Amino acid sequence: MHVFLPDGKQLDLEAGATALDAAKAIGPRLAQDALAATANGDLVDLMTPLPEGARITLITKKNPAEAAPLFRHSLGHVMSQAVGEFYERKGFGPEAVKRGVGPSIENGFYQDFDLPEPLKEEELPQIEAIMREILGRNLEFSRAEVSKAEALARFAYDPYKAELIAALPEDEPITFYTQGNYVDLCRGPHFPSTGKLPAAFKLMSTSGAYWRGNEKNPILQRVYGVAFASQKELDEYLTRLEEAKRRDHRKLGREMELFTIDPLVGRGLPLWLPNGTILREELMRFLREQQFQRDYQGVITPNIGNLELYKTSGHYQNYGDSNFSPITVDDEQYMLKPMNCPHHVRIYASKPRSYRDLPVRLAEFGTVYRYEQSGELNGLTRVRGFTQDDAHIFCRPDQLKKEFLDVLDLTVLVLRTFGMNDVRFRVGTRDPESSKYVGSDENWVAAERGIMEAVEEVGLPYTVEPGDAAFYGPKLDFVVRDVIGREWQLGTIQVDYNLPERFDISYVGEDGQDHRPVMIHRAPFGSLERFVGILIEHYGGDFPLWLAPRQIALIPIADRHNAYAESLAAEFKRVGLRAEVDDSTNRMNAKVRNAELSKIPVMLVVGDQEQERREVSVRERTPEGHKERKGVGFDALLAELQERYNIRA
Amino acid sequence: MHVFLPDGKQLDLEAGATALDAAKAIGPRLAQDALAATANGDLVDLMTPLPEGARITLITKKNPAEAAPLFRHSLGHVMSQAVGEFYERKGFGPEAVKRGVGPSIENGFYQDFDLPEPLKEEELPQIEAIMREILGRNLEFSRAEVSKAEALARFAYDPYKAELIAALPEDEPITFYTQGNYVDLCRGPHFPSTGKLPAAFKLMSTSGAYWRGNEKNPILQRVYGVAFASQKELDEYLTRLEEAKRRDHRKLGREMELFTIDPLVGRGLPLWLPNGTILREELMRFLREQQFQRDYQGVITPNIGNLELYKTSGHYQNYGDSNFSPITVDDEQYMLKPMNCPHHVRIYASKPRSYRDLPVRLAEFGTVYRYEQSGELNGLTRVRGFTQDDAHIFCRPDQLKKEFLDVLDLTVLVLRTFGMNDVRFRVGTRDPESSKYVGSDENWVAAERGIMEAVEEVGLPYTVEPGDAAFYGPKLDFVVRDVIGREWQLGTIQVDYNLPERFDISYVGEDGQDHRPVMIHRAPFGSLERFVGILIEHYGGDFPLWLAPRQIALIPIADRHNAYAESLAAEFKRVGLRAEVDDSTNRMNAKVRNAELSKIPVMLVVGDQEQERREVSVRERTPEGHKERKGVGFDALLAELQERYNIRA
Repeated sequence: MHVFLPDGKQLDLEAGATALDAAKAIGPRLAQDALAATANGDLVDLMTPLPEGARITLITKKNPAEAAPLFRHSLGHVMSQAVGEFYERKGFGPEAVKRGVGPSIENGFYQDFDLPEPLKEEELPQIEAIMREILGRNLEFSRAEVSKAEALARFAYDPYKAELIAALPEDEPITFYTQGNYVDLCRGPHFPSTGKLPAAFKLMSTSGAYWRGNEKNPILQRVYGVAFASQKELDEYLTRLEEAKRRDHRKLGREMELFTIDPLVGRGLPLWLPNGTILREELMRFLREQQFQRDYQGVITPNIGNLELYKTSGHYQNYGDSNFSPITVDDEQYMLKPMNCPHHVRIYASKPRSYRDLPVRLAEFGTVYRYEQSGELNGLTRVRGFTQDDAHIFCRPDQLKKEFLDVLDLTVLVLRTFGMNDVRFRVGTRDPESSKYVGSDENWVAAERGIMEAVEEVGLPYTVEPGDAAFYGPKLDFVVRDVIGREWQLGTIQVDYNLPERFDISYVGEDGQDHRPVMIHRAPFGSLERFVGILIEHYGGDFPLWLAPRQIALIPIADRHNAYAESLAAEFKRVGLRAEVDDSTNRMNAKVRNAELSKIPVMLVVGDQEQERREVSVRERTPEGHKERKGVGFDALLAELQERYNIRA
Repeated sequence: MHVFLPDGKQLDLEAGATALDAAKAIGPRLAQDALAATANGDLVDLMTPLPEGARITLITKKNPAEAAPLFRHSLGHVMSQAVGEFYERKGFGPEAVKRGVGPSIENGFYQDFDLPEPLKEEELPQIEAIMREILGRNLEFSRAEVSKAEALARFAYDPYKAELIAALPEDEPITFYTQGNYVDLCRGPHFPSTGKLPAAFKLMSTSGAYWRGNEKNPILQRVYGVAFASQKELDEYLTRLEEAKRRDHRKLGREMELFTIDPLVGRGLPLWLPNGTILREELMRFLREQQFQRDYQGVITPNIGNLELYKTSGHYQNYGDSNFSPITVDDEQYMLKPMNCPHHVRIYASKPRSYRDLPVRLAEFGTVYRYEQSGELNGLTRVRGFTQDDAHIFCRPDQLKKEFLDVLDLTVLVLRTFGMNDVRFRVGTRDPESSKYVGSDENWVAAERGIMEAVEEVGLPYTVEPGDAAFYGPKLDFVVRDVIGREWQLGTIQVDYNLPERFDISYVGEDGQDHRPVMIHRAPFGSLERFVGILIEHYGGDFPLWLAPRQIALIPIADRHNAYAESLAAEFKRVGLRAEVDDSTNRMNAKVRNAELSKIPVMLVVGDQEQERREVSVRERTPEGHKERKGVGFDALLAELQERYNIRA
């Protein structure tokens, strides 16, 4: 048989040859260093016959990270073996441990077990220790094809494996992978031996999982691990995980009193507490100002609408599962609004429009309600009621590109304001094969070209996803990466040829005839709930001055400075800044520590000297750490903070 | 028999004597001048026997307005007679006109007819002319008691009268009132004669009205008239009516594009158009700033809630008819929120509170939904969905008076800001006879005393209405009179001992024990919808600068000044002021007229000289008329308008 190397060179091998055979054919050193391979782009192990004519590459110790799914999978087998040995050492027989599935997953692996007695979280380090022993034994992973009868006989003691084997097709080979005395039913692929596996792994937790995900089946115990090619990567991952836990918006939301969810009010329906309300209103004020400068017009529409409205828009028919059930009023039916668009279309239609009036940009912080399964609900990021920073732009086809560019510009400005500089766009265009799209071919071509030109002008990275357009128009999603490396999809910008058609809206053109406007749907934040959830995690609660619900802590050194501190707090309040005095009986250092724990960005310490000279000592949290300034004149500081608040620096 | 005069003097009269007999007994001049009387405080006519021992006063030509319900009723009979004569003159028989009811109403009277052919609006002046003839005939109104059989015989030709007579009790006297050849079934009372009736009347309109208000019955034609004691009062009334029509918020709302109501979205669910949204957001910004200064904390809660929440609060049980029907979600039921209070109570309860944390003032512009019959809906003032400027203050009993005073102070400030200086309060206190009230006697006594003291301190007129308290606490309503004399009830302030009990909320007192806080509900605007509706009528659409949706019109004298005007508009926009350029081809005077018709308060005309010197010519609408200033430096004007906008002058 033949395979081809990356440089195009052909390698002649015996029939049924593996990647290891290919490595040996190149040289003994490579055969020694090889960990895995790719064949026609797919990751394969060294033990599996290569397909005829495959283009192969070999993965070695030099770039082990490329083989991550393989070593994670193999470490899963090692963990499974170690759990078996752990129970044998406890005195259970070798067939006491039964096993469900055990795949590799993002960053690691898991294995489901039916154990003779539950594994405790505190026993995980013992399992890890046995795993390290097994790595030390340097056991080879070997692959064998077996018949269904052989397979069933081998796993007769394990009802889960037996069930899996019974379900396999008769005519396909069944493979076993074996390391030492551990055998598992497995498709592979795997590393060549346990000695070549990275030791950078950690068992994280155990949890219950229904066999085959069905809640009528028994619960198995699932053990999770993470694994990386190097200890450095593992450490970084664990730090990120700690960091993500520390920044969890549900935890910070509770500690900083930003929001709460109360089952008596309703699941997935956050109550915004005073501090969270400040955050939300600052965001709204910011966007409202931007939108005023860009000639958006605010509108306000009800949270419910006649069912006929959503039948006309198509939301009723097309989004059935996420609609709340109808409300009967007299002889009509109403529904909680799932989207603001139909309301805005009716506002557009409330008076005649001329080509000179366009574009019309209607903006609303519109609260909508969509059903989500209760198991899907999560803090602020997955809810049943949320407020979109919604706007709909009604424009002529010849205005589409300019409008799209302005929306992109606003979006990038918004994200940069929050230090979200790692942004990329995904442009969804038509599937050229499909005919599901509404709107003329001419409009689609122009719209897609306009969007691409607009995205090019903005100059940020983007990908084009053909076939990802909605049936009613092309769209653009934006994705940001936060400081700890996680990607979040935020809002979208969508072109819509469908709603103008369904609602039969028009404008009178220069030619005196009726024409159909195009709509753009856009929401830079996406929703206030989700965006605030993401912002909390992005900042880890350390909000910049303008966003911080609690901005300024006035810290009197002694009781005799309380009145001075109160007088300064009143001056801050008069200009709209949020200041508070810590008049507790704590000592000064404890007051400073409490203010820091409360994530108040500006601390002002006042004692005898400050009071005498109408000064303050400033201690500030900055991204680079704490900054101190002594003896700052109060009036200058007030002006400085006001200015920083206003320019949102 | 005896009656008593206002000075206490006793008058001896024959049994069955009338007020006319009493007047005659005093003197012939009085008998001549008397128009009506009161007996024991009730208005009576001169023809009806007085009750034995009554305290009477006589109403004469000198104060005819006191007898307004009487002359309005009598003019109704005159109108009814005139309509009969009108059809007789057309050739119909005297029994061709049938009649429903015909009472006096506020400012006038109406009469329902079943006519041989419809009366046209343009025929009303002819009816008025016949009425004046009848006044000229000076026919006496005479009163007669008749038997039911006689009554039925007299009105055998008229099925409506016959139906009314048949329904009368057998044992009570039936009375007829007659003037000339016109006889009507009537309880009275009436003026002595048509010649003494004021000629200051006007027939206003006709409309259809179901017989007995039942839509299964035939439709009768109702003719409306208004009448006053003097022509001056009638003229003033008609002017006020014209003024009210001119100021009608539904009319101005349409013309100024403030809001629209769209049946496809829903009845009673206004859509706020861009101009109305500005108005609403200015109001919210104003109140939000005031509330920030007074240490309110903003919260935001969902528009729906679990039914259990409203069962706990009691709203579900007690406000059944105004609740929208429930929405089923999984195995729970939800409802559109009719009130924000339960949500705020749950926010209060979301963490432990100490006596030092109180008062807690939670404010929300909360959108609520209450069912109203479709016939009751009216523009912005009677709707099914509205946003309350709601707040709930949770305080200790000893803080109640201070909090109440602060709320009153805020309310008065709010009303004065809109030039609503004619304000009065209605204090609702307990009915001392009833035991329906919750909360301790001690708390009620203290709360009522606190409120009365607070109201006294504010120094505005008030009335106390015993028995008008809610069962859960005393309350205060405020009523304003607008520039055309109409009274509007705005928001209320209510003390509540009930919800804290039902939700079992508490605070830890200085004694370490749990105590129950008191709640105050308050809303200075009442609702944004209703308040804006009232404001539109109050200002007649001529809003002050800070509220005006369109603030500044830039008027270039010629095309060559357009660019200069645009550059000034951009400068206004940068500082948040709303300016627009009229770059139409109209002449300058027409542009000024259009801006005035659009109710834009500030007009800036720019021509060669202005452009050269960076000046503007200012034309402003003020309450005293138009004010003009030529050659005003632009930068000074920008600063002036910014200042006026910010201080809301």
